[in-house]
Amino acid sequence: MKLAVSCQLTYETTQNTPLVLMLRPRSGAGQWVTKEEYLLDPNIPVVEYTDLYGNLCQRLLTPEGNFTVKTSAIVEAPDTIDVDFNANFVPVQELPDDSLIYLLPSRYCESDKLGNMASTIVQEATTGYEQVEAIRKWINENIDYQYGHSNASTSAQDTAQSQVGVCRDFSHLAVALCRSLNIPARFVVGYLYELKPMDLHAWFEAYLGGRWYTFDATQTQPRGNRVVLAYGRDAADVALATQFGEMELTSMFVSVEPVQENETL
Amino acid sequence: MKLAVSCQLTYETTQNTPLVLMLRPRSGAGQWVTKEEYLLDPNIPVVEYTDLYGNLCQRLLTPEGNFTVKTSAIVEAPDTIDVDFNANFVPVQELPDDSLIYLLPSRYCESDKLGNMASTIVQEATTGYEQVEAIRKWINENIDYQYGHSNASTSAQDTAQSQVGVCRDFSHLAVALCRSLNIPARFVVGYLYELKPMDLHAWFEAYLGGRWYTFDATQTQPRGNRVVLAYGRDAADVALATQFGEMELTSMFVSVEPVQENETL
Amino acid sequence: MKLAVSCQLTYETTQNTPLVLMLRPRSGAGQWVTKEEYLLDPNIPVVEYTDLYGNLCQRLLTPEGNFTVKTSAIVEAPDTIDVDFNANFVPVQELPDDSLIYLLPSRYCESDKLGNMASTIVQEATTGYEQVEAIRKWINENIDYQYGHSNASTSAQDTAQSQVGVCRDFSHLAVALCRSLNIPARFVVGYLYELKPMDLHAWFEAYLGGRWYTFDATQTQPRGNRVVLAYGRDAADVALATQFGEMELTSMFVSVEPVQENETL
Amino acid sequence: MKLAVSCQLTYETTQNTPLVLMLRPRSGAGQWVTKEEYLLDPNIPVVEYTDLYGNLCQRLLTPEGNFTVKTSAIVEAPDTIDVDFNANFVPVQELPDDSLIYLLPSRYCESDKLGNMASTIVQEATTGYEQVEAIRKWINENIDYQYGHSNASTSAQDTAQSQVGVCRDFSHLAVALCRSLNIPARFVVGYLYELKPMDLHAWFEAYLGGRWYTFDATQTQPRGNRVVLAYGRDAADVALATQFGEMELTSMFVSVEPVQENETL
Repeated sequence: MKLAVSCQLTYETTQNTPLVLMLRPRSGAGQWVTKEEYLLDPNIPVVEYTDLYGNLCQRLLTPEGNFTVKTSAIVEAPDTIDVDFNANFVPVQELPDDSLIYLLPSRYCESDKLGNMASTIVQEATTGYEQVEAIRKWINENIDYQYGHSNASTSAQDTAQSQVGVCRDFSHLAVALCRSLNIPARFVVGYLYELKPMDLHAWFEAYLGGRWYTFDATQTQPRGNRVVLAYGRDAADVALATQFGEMELTSMFVSVEPVQENETL
Repeated sequence: MKLAVSCQLTYETTQNTPLVLMLRPRSGAGQWVTKEEYLLDPNIPVVEYTDLYGNLCQRLLTPEGNFTVKTSAIVEAPDTIDVDFNANFVPVQELPDDSLIYLLPSRYCESDKLGNMASTIVQEATTGYEQVEAIRKWINENIDYQYGHSNASTSAQDTAQSQVGVCRDFSHLAVALCRSLNIPARFVVGYLYELKPMDLHAWFEAYLGGRWYTFDATQTQPRGNRVVLAYGRDAADVALATQFGEMELTSMFVSVEPVQENETL
Repeated sequence: MKLAVSCQLTYETTQNTPLVLMLRPRSGAGQWVTKEEYLLDPNIPVVEYTDLYGNLCQRLLTPEGNFTVKTSAIVEAPDTIDVDFNANFVPVQELPDDSLIYLLPSRYCESDKLGNMASTIVQEATTGYEQVEAIRKWINENIDYQYGHSNASTSAQDTAQSQVGVCRDFSHLAVALCRSLNIPARFVVGYLYELKPMDLHAWFEAYLGGRWYTFDATQTQPRGNRVVLAYGRDAADVALATQFGEMELTSMFVSVEPVQENETL
Repeated sequence: MKLAVSCQLTYETTQNTPLVLMLRPRSGAGQWVTKEEYLLDPNIPVVEYTDLYGNLCQRLLTPEGNFTVKTSAIVEAPDTIDVDFNANFVPVQELPDDSLIYLLPSRYCESDKLGNMASTIVQEATTGYEQVEAIRKWINENIDYQYGHSNASTSAQDTAQSQVGVCRDFSHLAVALCRSLNIPARFVVGYLYELKPMDLHAWFEAYLGGRWYTFDATQTQPRGNRVVLAYGRDAADVALATQFGEMELTSMFVSVEPVQENETL
């Protein structure tokens, strides 16, 4: 489906504050950006660079007072995600070099502490895709989706204990559990069509059978129509906005709408 | 100045032909892409990747028949280019690692063969910026700007002999001459406001005094309002369209227009 | 000083276990590897790759039974580390792109939780080098260096609470505290001459005044004669040996000795 | 076979001259460096970095007078090279992103000018491995291997005309011909056991059937026991020694010897 995605953030601050944003989707193997807009008000200088994971990052120094970022894009994204229960576990020694970093524990995914929990959850699953699906399903069924119980410091282990959280927490827990089974897993942020309530979203991918598969522990069924903004080890790597100082996010607006296909040159 | 740039290419082919394009400008230290559009007709699948030089490249397989690519962007670009006759020559041992590749000869810049020519041109110049400016000026004054005398295989050495060419040839010769003096030089392609006749353009950059400076041997005066599409060693690296098979470019349209500043969120 | 460094690890396992090692020092701006040896017994296949941080990593699948890795190198390393109390704090907006990742929290460095602690420690220090030195000194004076109180899961926050740990814990805490003040800090592993008892060692670097400075919270005085094996965000990134399965390290031997300078061709 | 390789270069110069060397082999998928030594006389500072192709490069400023570099290594390398006449041509649209640069023309490989020559040579070959082998064999049989007829500026086109050259020229011609058929090809430098007369050597690799295959147009039969020092587009990228100024190479000594396998820890 062709999707029109948009995100508008407004900040208020009493001092210049360095800010790093990851709000520009990249075209890649899985999605194609047809049109894109990135506006700042006031219109201050920005510098863009590519981080270690290949994400486009925008650096700027916010002005005092109010500051608004508005990004929008039209992106072609697959209607469905691939599901393959036969996708096998890839032994560590056969993994590609660049997937190995996704086996390591990270700030919000303490995979080194969650091995027992993972083993219990996947005990009846065949190794590979079934294990990841077992983890995803367990989280979907056992963790309460509720706002206000977690914050920017909440980690997978915290969520395993509290059994409550939001999409970010669900994904961190899933990633940590996969890694503890030696399955590379990465954290993804972006847009999901028909997410309710509409917001920026987080999900995860696992490396199985020689490629990355998309999973979403917040959903009961596989759903496509996703636009990826950034990939990383966890939310520390792919915070959509990292601010280095005090600054209040006074409003945030996200939308994802289908686009008519009959657009022409 | 805020510029609206646009490029439309139409191809005709009797077979599927692999094509690599470099038509998406990147935001970076020197320019900021506010808005961008990338349309294909028919709307076939594309995959984007980043090459070794950091350029965004679009890969696709053209359909049989007619095929059109239309890209456009609104980009903030500096009105002027920096000119600094005091920017000094950086000794090779003090150059940053990633500039060293721009000292080596390349397909269209046989710097290994043009040392004597360079020495003659710069003999009265102080080392550094003055040398590059002497090269730029010499080419501007001594090479005839004419279409139809060079082609995709024409190199700097060819141009040194024929003394005729277009922007691509001027830039290749300048790059080769700079490198023969151990000054890192790279080839740039993009848009230039008020270029006559309007077309995609090529110019060059030289590394002096710790940074890259913009030069353009086709112009008599320094001019800003440039939008960079890609950097590389020469036109082999940064061909805006590299086709792997027979295919005819049946039409090409380029425009660069100023944008009113009062655009709002 | 020219140093002969050596590390020998012996493992015992009942099954083939994937292992990633980071035991080959790289030549770089700060050290020069003159001679190097990397032996495996039994002599099984190894593949080497470079990780995201530029470290050389060796991948292998250990055989059943006993397995020994012995690496040794002769490395020229500076006798002293640079100390500069005038090295200033670099505002985030002026940091180089590739240092930004070292501002983010990571598995063992929960900088997002340690801001208050850092502020208290550095309250009398001028911003910049003095702050990092205040952190380093505080840890040296307030954390007990003792074996057996921390393990592979111990993080900076754990150490801040327990006030006991080893070189790895000291460094994690220092890194986390620096990052909470928006000073990029990275974790370093390697060899230190005359370390007592001799072992592989961990210390940290902070980015100040436009470059990285070496600090070591386990020492009372600045000491040079260090050989770096790997850099990273924390010990998750630069574990010298990451094993993916059960395997016992049955012995480990490390040595660092001075080499006579009169070696000749 | 385990090989002891060694290269000693002596220079004489009347002024400090910047020099970039590529004389340190890397461990990788195809070879494993067990032991290595890198000595300079006099013992001046060196800095090592990794170039765009992943090669380790050593930068230094030679002293006035005599200067000697001696590198040696013990490397495990396969006894044979893989030969597979069924390895198929990979259509450009299916090539991995990072192989695409090896389709482009480069300084010494004017593939844009050698398409007709390539078509003639491979006219009876099946597309894929057979084409590359036809090119390799044609060069082996039709180009005279002679010293003194080519130099550092000789390109593939020059060699196609003169029909005489050395290993470097043979490889440039082969690479250019492969690329003109849309087969990615890269230039390799290193050591070859039992090369006569012993010297540093150049050969090439072509991307077929999903991987790189080794070819050597100077040999009548496939031969293994090769140690790779560097990969690149051509000799401009992977000159083992690139000097930026006047300096005479007064002697050069290369050796490749088998090592007894019973070496122990």
